[in-house]
Amino acid sequence: MIVILDSSTTEQSEAYQLTLNYLSRLPGIAAHIHKVQGAQQVLTEIYLIGDTKTLSADDIHALPGVERVIRISEEYRILGRHRDEQRISGFEYNGVLFSQDTLNIFAGLCAVDTPQHVEQMLKALQEHGQVCTRMGAYKPRTNPYSFQGHGKACLPYVFELAGKYGIKVIAMEVTHESHVDEIHESLEQTGRPTGVMVQIGTRNTQNFELLKAVGRQQEFPVLFKRGFGITLNESLNAAEYLASEGNSQVVFCLRGVKTNMGDPHRNLVDFSQVPVVKRLTRMPVCVDPSHSVGSRERAPDGMLDLMHATAQGVIAGANLVLVDFHPHPAEALVDGPQALLMSELGWFLEDVALARECYEKRQMLTEQWKTGKRR
Amino acid sequence: MIVILDSSTTEQSEAYQLTLNYLSRLPGIAAHIHKVQGAQQVLTEIYLIGDTKTLSADDIHALPGVERVIRISEEYRILGRHRDEQRISGFEYNGVLFSQDTLNIFAGLCAVDTPQHVEQMLKALQEHGQVCTRMGAYKPRTNPYSFQGHGKACLPYVFELAGKYGIKVIAMEVTHESHVDEIHESLEQTGRPTGVMVQIGTRNTQNFELLKAVGRQQEFPVLFKRGFGITLNESLNAAEYLASEGNSQVVFCLRGVKTNMGDPHRNLVDFSQVPVVKRLTRMPVCVDPSHSVGSRERAPDGMLDLMHATAQGVIAGANLVLVDFHPHPAEALVDGPQALLMSELGWFLEDVALARECYEKRQMLTEQWKTGKRR
Amino acid sequence: MIVILDSSTTEQSEAYQLTLNYLSRLPGIAAHIHKVQGAQQVLTEIYLIGDTKTLSADDIHALPGVERVIRISEEYRILGRHRDEQRISGFEYNGVLFSQDTLNIFAGLCAVDTPQHVEQMLKALQEHGQVCTRMGAYKPRTNPYSFQGHGKACLPYVFELAGKYGIKVIAMEVTHESHVDEIHESLEQTGRPTGVMVQIGTRNTQNFELLKAVGRQQEFPVLFKRGFGITLNESLNAAEYLASEGNSQVVFCLRGVKTNMGDPHRNLVDFSQVPVVKRLTRMPVCVDPSHSVGSRERAPDGMLDLMHATAQGVIAGANLVLVDFHPHPAEALVDGPQALLMSELGWFLEDVALARECYEKRQMLTEQWKTGKRR
Amino acid sequence: MIVILDSSTTEQSEAYQLTLNYLSRLPGIAAHIHKVQGAQQVLTEIYLIGDTKTLSADDIHALPGVERVIRISEEYRILGRHRDEQRISGFEYNGVLFSQDTLNIFAGLCAVDTPQHVEQMLKALQEHGQVCTRMGAYKPRTNPYSFQGHGKACLPYVFELAGKYGIKVIAMEVTHESHVDEIHESLEQTGRPTGVMVQIGTRNTQNFELLKAVGRQQEFPVLFKRGFGITLNESLNAAEYLASEGNSQVVFCLRGVKTNMGDPHRNLVDFSQVPVVKRLTRMPVCVDPSHSVGSRERAPDGMLDLMHATAQGVIAGANLVLVDFHPHPAEALVDGPQALLMSELGWFLEDVALARECYEKRQMLTEQWKTGKRR
Repeated sequence: MIVILDSSTTEQSEAYQLTLNYLSRLPGIAAHIHKVQGAQQVLTEIYLIGDTKTLSADDIHALPGVERVIRISEEYRILGRHRDEQRISGFEYNGVLFSQDTLNIFAGLCAVDTPQHVEQMLKALQEHGQVCTRMGAYKPRTNPYSFQGHGKACLPYVFELAGKYGIKVIAMEVTHESHVDEIHESLEQTGRPTGVMVQIGTRNTQNFELLKAVGRQQEFPVLFKRGFGITLNESLNAAEYLASEGNSQVVFCLRGVKTNMGDPHRNLVDFSQVPVVKRLTRMPVCVDPSHSVGSRERAPDGMLDLMHATAQGVIAGANLVLVDFHPHPAEALVDGPQALLMSELGWFLEDVALARECYEKRQMLTEQWKTGKRR
Repeated sequence: MIVILDSSTTEQSEAYQLTLNYLSRLPGIAAHIHKVQGAQQVLTEIYLIGDTKTLSADDIHALPGVERVIRISEEYRILGRHRDEQRISGFEYNGVLFSQDTLNIFAGLCAVDTPQHVEQMLKALQEHGQVCTRMGAYKPRTNPYSFQGHGKACLPYVFELAGKYGIKVIAMEVTHESHVDEIHESLEQTGRPTGVMVQIGTRNTQNFELLKAVGRQQEFPVLFKRGFGITLNESLNAAEYLASEGNSQVVFCLRGVKTNMGDPHRNLVDFSQVPVVKRLTRMPVCVDPSHSVGSRERAPDGMLDLMHATAQGVIAGANLVLVDFHPHPAEALVDGPQALLMSELGWFLEDVALARECYEKRQMLTEQWKTGKRR
Repeated sequence: MIVILDSSTTEQSEAYQLTLNYLSRLPGIAAHIHKVQGAQQVLTEIYLIGDTKTLSADDIHALPGVERVIRISEEYRILGRHRDEQRISGFEYNGVLFSQDTLNIFAGLCAVDTPQHVEQMLKALQEHGQVCTRMGAYKPRTNPYSFQGHGKACLPYVFELAGKYGIKVIAMEVTHESHVDEIHESLEQTGRPTGVMVQIGTRNTQNFELLKAVGRQQEFPVLFKRGFGITLNESLNAAEYLASEGNSQVVFCLRGVKTNMGDPHRNLVDFSQVPVVKRLTRMPVCVDPSHSVGSRERAPDGMLDLMHATAQGVIAGANLVLVDFHPHPAEALVDGPQALLMSELGWFLEDVALARECYEKRQMLTEQWKTGKRR
Repeated sequence: MIVILDSSTTEQSEAYQLTLNYLSRLPGIAAHIHKVQGAQQVLTEIYLIGDTKTLSADDIHALPGVERVIRISEEYRILGRHRDEQRISGFEYNGVLFSQDTLNIFAGLCAVDTPQHVEQMLKALQEHGQVCTRMGAYKPRTNPYSFQGHGKACLPYVFELAGKYGIKVIAMEVTHESHVDEIHESLEQTGRPTGVMVQIGTRNTQNFELLKAVGRQQEFPVLFKRGFGITLNESLNAAEYLASEGNSQVVFCLRGVKTNMGDPHRNLVDFSQVPVVKRLTRMPVCVDPSHSVGSRERAPDGMLDLMHATAQGVIAGANLVLVDFHPHPAEALVDGPQALLMSELGWFLEDVALARECYEKRQMLTEQWKTGKRR
């Protein structure tokens, strides 16, 4: 870690003494002072050498006279993509492969409401050759008086229907550690007809107790959403909580950034960061167009903004797409209006296929330019 | 609730039909259409009459052709300040009064480290006539490898020392529902020498499961912090979760907004919203200068930014101040560098007293102008 | 315009009287009061009928007791896309067509430095069949001590070389009204070998005096960039300034949003709003990947983030791409490091072509689904 | 300037070579490489020694493999507060002193509408012993169809009335360089009855051409407002433009930050940064409560939010207050609703005096604690 002092902090100043005093007492850390003579002034750097991963950059930044703190030990120790590394990226779960090279669509119900709707959804997915879905049983609602999901009561029929229609993986949000147990038990009772990818929602990105609990189990992989109001780096650090407890089968999901700069969309879509997450970590990257766009508005070209956003994620190499459908949006209890219609499923999947095909052509083109086959 | 359609959405359009269809099926809600003839065009409003408190404005905003959604039923049903209302604001806990008219200082340790430091802190508080403090036993840390607090192990000596030095209320963050039980048990075992105000931190503002658990108990009042990346309105709605479960002894804490517009402070201090929270709700309002300012920088006038921020909160009527002190900041395990020194406690308290005195003079002045005694 | 009063503002209140008094005196406006009886309370709306386009929603929002203000007269009067409208979108300039259906690439130098670099750039563009470019002569620099562009001195050779290599349109930023005259004069003196699209940069989006000056001339079309820190709606309103003064040949350019949520990119790329601008207005939409991404980082798939962002814009229907190239980035005086290399021009154009081809396939697919040819 | 490379950028990598190549060619700059051996890895720093003030940190940050860029040469060269410096802070203009120790109130009309209102305002100010005011003649309006101010037509009567009522300094926004000439001419013609402090508004903070023009004249001091969407540091750098052209009589004005985190206020009030600006620069600091709060809402204690915000600025040492009043807000053409009433002028000034008195007591207390008179 490098601590850079403000150029006005001289060796004689009280700030200098206080800060050096603090840093030199850090256990297991050596503090080396280094002075850089510039054209106009002298700058002081303090190198902290040792096991700096437990230090908080914020704390050290708060010391008097400190201008900047730069962490040089590698971040995202387990999930990160480190130099010269041959660790395999991605994982297989219940027969489905998730990696930075694959593409899986998780179309489904934002919130489970009735067995009929679940069945209609899953049947349609099977007809279109899909083996993944999303089904919300536990819903975190901003308003305490809103419908909060059917919870464990709906799990048996959701799982059985999934098995019936050949669904291998269901993405399902949990908001409490007990939900993981309930999912486990219900899967056992129904004879494990399908698999579950446990989802951590954006309001729980920094709910560290939940992350630790979910990280301690290794039965279910985790779909981890970017948090509100924090940087990408802070969200990636939170994902590392899961890995530090033992579960590194984690997919990172971009779901837009909450700012009125994104109006009239519900959030400002952040899918330009798909390549960033792939570069910084080894996690497969998911995009959630439904919650970032948040409406069914369409462009003059007839395509929904939501489909444009999806295509933007996929053409840049996204590995999963999480998207809301509903047989009867007018009856949906949560997020109905933004849901795509069953009649749009075929269109949506073909549109995604076009974008994926384009991504693959772009990869080939890149290969040709790199190897000099084109110039 | 009023739904205003986009001016280009005519009665004949598909969007109009879809939206009306959706709205007219909402259970227990009647939808009335109202047209406003403007100078240039016709505008359509749909009034939703009935028990609209369970509806999500976001969902309805996502319907095709909807330009705006305005909720007219009262927000913050329990904690809100409603018209013509005579409900008492504030509450007494363990002999200390908390209301929109009082001022209490919660100076203390961000994180408990050793019994010696706890005792030094509490002794100094008693000497300065204070009966409240803050003591962190459970610390949510961004980095999974950082010190996470001593947890329940430190509770017995914290409570006993508090009793010894006449402390009536300790603000203490909890990050899991089990922490409330641990606090309860430890208080029982030590013979209830003091009281605890349970704190919900900014990373858990929308951890609804924790809010429900804390809201269901009525033993401890709650200090509830504004959340990252969400609006003030959304944070106030989250506080309502506590009340909807039965606990309305809630203090709302402003702690700055995370944006680089606040640099070089850690956050952009938001204490201008003290009067806003007092107007919208009946909650006492706390300010947290330590975490919003996040450093010990001082102005050319010799005062710490942190003291200026505190004075700004108090002169506008803040009711609580949460502030970090430490006998030996260089040895503090969490947030040491920003902590005030024990030798600054007297200065800090006198400075707060000056700001409070000024607030009271401003109140008197207001009264005189309102009643015509001055003009 | 609809003014909605706070539900606690009764007819008897002082706020009600003050606000009504203010509104009823607005010249040329009639104020109609309308009460809506909800299940729990009465809500008051005031309709302002008349020529409300001169009213400021902010001002009216500031009146006591006002909860919300909704403007119903159409925004973006000239540039907007209004209902049932047959006005032609797009324009032709110097033989090049710009519309919501076309795609033009403006690759070139962020800042003109030497005639040699200009010639190398333009020659390469001609070899790749391009007829548009970008060339910066006037550079607004954050630092007063930085290179500010060669200004009018470089215009003659830039224009002559453009003519020599068949360039029809040069996008060129202006930061002062006199620059437009200088461009006009230099074009005259060199015999009009090329054309210029005048660019308004992001720091001048709300420099209304410059907008008025540029809007008053109709010789040059305008490339108008989204502003820092303001909403999309506010930027679109600023573009309307140009049209209100007489020039509606305006292209709107998305260039990212300044927020640390976009780190490690320089800005948070906002190309998901391409379909939004096309829906709300009739302007062709440009994307600027160079300044929004701001680096040459690349994903593990070998593609630059900048190329991914470009593809994301194009697959959603962008009509122009503004992108920095440089023959010798190490010698570039402005924004060199992020520039693409000349050797990457062919690759970049092929990559864009793939994304455009995909967009066109997506359009065809949409047509087939809409007309029932696929289902 | 220090350039820190990403820990994965080895000496052998292409990124390393490209970046070093670029940096070593910078004219007048020497690049020294320095390696830091940490516990886990080696880090490379490149020190750029020489006249680095013309370099753009953004450009260098965009080089491949660069993790961070730290500027060590002093920022705000002229306006900054540098170490060991004895330069005088503040200035006198037309008999009024402006410094980091003084307090002046600029109450007045946001926009001049009629001579009657101007006279009523100025007469009231004289009666309350004030010698400064604000009067808007040139108004930058978001909406091209709104009232844009009376411009130079109103200057003669504004200046004459100011002279009549003993006003020494009028803060007046300019949006074009010609406005400065118009003000100069009108003052000459009317016999210089008063003085003008030229104001740069928030939409023109980075209109560098205007800054250069205003900086070149030294007749009028400048009131410079913080910009939208840029950091405090960027706004301070823009103020430096004025000084670099020759005018260092600059007052810096905090006016809130545009973010929906500030709702229901128009902006998020940023007056906690008063001590920051005083520490970083030698400029007097102004606060603008009218435009940051943007409404006349009041707290349950009867005080307007706007008065609370003002008191917050003053108790932290603000040196100027810019505030809107109007004799008949219902007739004001711009920003009427948020204006204070003439009948509130006495109250407002007394309230400010209480806050200032408190600031001075806080200064004395600080002195006593520093010198050991209290402990």
